[in-house]
Amino acid sequence: MRAIIFNGESAEFIADYPVSQRQANESLIEVQIAALCSTDREILRGYRPDFKGVLGHEFVGIVRESDTSHLIGQRVVGEINLSCGTCLYCLSGRANHCSERLTLGINHKDGACADFLTLPTELLHVVPDGLPSEIAVFCEPLAAALRITEQVDFPAGVPVAIVGDGRLALMICQALAASTSAVLTVIGRHPEKLELFAPWATTLTKPQGSYEVVIDASGSPESLALSIALTRSEGTLVMKSTYAGTASIDMSEVVVRELRIQGSRCGPFEPALRLLDEGRVALPPIELYAPEDSDAAFASRAFKAAFDFRR
Amino acid sequence: MRAIIFNGESAEFIADYPVSQRQANESLIEVQIAALCSTDREILRGYRPDFKGVLGHEFVGIVRESDTSHLIGQRVVGEINLSCGTCLYCLSGRANHCSERLTLGINHKDGACADFLTLPTELLHVVPDGLPSEIAVFCEPLAAALRITEQVDFPAGVPVAIVGDGRLALMICQALAASTSAVLTVIGRHPEKLELFAPWATTLTKPQGSYEVVIDASGSPESLALSIALTRSEGTLVMKSTYAGTASIDMSEVVVRELRIQGSRCGPFEPALRLLDEGRVALPPIELYAPEDSDAAFASRAFKAAFDFRR
Repeated sequence: MRAIIFNGESAEFIADYPVSQRQANESLIEVQIAALCSTDREILRGYRPDFKGVLGHEFVGIVRESDTSHLIGQRVVGEINLSCGTCLYCLSGRANHCSERLTLGINHKDGACADFLTLPTELLHVVPDGLPSEIAVFCEPLAAALRITEQVDFPAGVPVAIVGDGRLALMICQALAASTSAVLTVIGRHPEKLELFAPWATTLTKPQGSYEVVIDASGSPESLALSIALTRSEGTLVMKSTYAGTASIDMSEVVVRELRIQGSRCGPFEPALRLLDEGRVALPPIELYAPEDSDAAFASRAFKAAFDFRR
Repeated sequence: MRAIIFNGESAEFIADYPVSQRQANESLIEVQIAALCSTDREILRGYRPDFKGVLGHEFVGIVRESDTSHLIGQRVVGEINLSCGTCLYCLSGRANHCSERLTLGINHKDGACADFLTLPTELLHVVPDGLPSEIAVFCEPLAAALRITEQVDFPAGVPVAIVGDGRLALMICQALAASTSAVLTVIGRHPEKLELFAPWATTLTKPQGSYEVVIDASGSPESLALSIALTRSEGTLVMKSTYAGTASIDMSEVVVRELRIQGSRCGPFEPALRLLDEGRVALPPIELYAPEDSDAAFASRAFKAAFDFRR
């Protein structure tokens, strides 16, 4: 099958990569669309030195083989963390943090940028009929954005800042607008990107004000100090970006101002699919690439670059 | 009056320092005992470059002048944050984080290592009659330890690690033992200090295990990576130590493991006084110094070094 792999140094298109063997609990899925996100770009920069294999963890595909027969032929999206079912985390309702977990396209599990992928059947979610695959492929990042609402309280009218004006920030902004009545401010560097946020948030190119909740979706360790400065004492800073390397932090400020820093990762798929199906999240167009054009896709600065495996 | 001041470079005993002018809302307090803590030592190391003046924020004293006449002659302890009453923080129930605040012996307010101090009367708490001043002087640090129970949930039996085996750690250990049913483990480097924790906690000199809540009371930026490693995914790391400079942190681990880092500072005085009065906190003896012996007091490695202004 066709596949875009990380070979340890760069992304590489392979025309004849072997199809993964489906395990008993898994389904075999024929990929329609597999999208790229900043985590994939961080992998190319060395964020996951122990990962080699097929890239990608955002996809829409059609189930071709499964022990759950009613799923065969269905169009699905899939959660990305494969858990063991027996560790402390699995037994305490935190399977996403399974200590033995594999992660699709990130950690010892071939990802979605290929003609086929395998995934435990329990991780699959059927895509509503009317929802185009080009939109459903945003389910995983939108779920990750919604994760914040599971972790942090948003009282009516609470002032919230989102630091960053990229794709992740736009998903978070809309996720919060759709599921809280927080008063949103987005702080970014690019006026043309900030225009996209105008329906839901005040936008600022110069940071100002203070906020009960600040969400760092900048993807940059340099913005951490800014995000801390914007967070009110006893407030919460949500860290949403992953990047290679360490960040420097004034821990005394965290202590003295009693800040709460909350890491946030994967979220709930069903509410994300529902928001997408109800048309409550506006998404700039996706840019589709042929699988062979992996270099161009990774270099793309489009809102969302994705591979179209249907052609 | 006698006073131990920070002159910008070191601690210095002054025999004839001027007595502070009492403001209308303040009481004048004759100090009995003023204790030192690691924050004072950090000030000597440059933690508060903009502070000069009388050191010390832990004290017991007797009210000599006050507009609240029934307090005159009473023995008191005092909270340390002087708030403006009108800022966003004061108006939202977070006066300890007042943006205009002064902090006793730390921030633009002469501290307690002197024959007299002034403090807003509303910050004073009367010490129960039977409670010796040598014990009541632990009220402020015990209150700070109890602060954790206001910020973090401790379900029955939850595994909690305290990193550090010093005074702050011992206060935290006993505060949690007295007010939660958490299962406590203390991780430190000094077997002789760890013995003090044995009535309430398992003690370890080699870090092991994982914990839902980890409390970093080490006073050392080097231990941050250890504290993070000990915290379970989706768990909480409470930062209790202040120190000069920045710490390096692997923010991707915070994000991927969805850790919560909670800064924690000052706490409630009344429950702290109650625990002390009920004898539910065991404290190794305090070491009392004459005010002139400031160098010896700061150099002391006693559990608690304090100045006795009664002689």
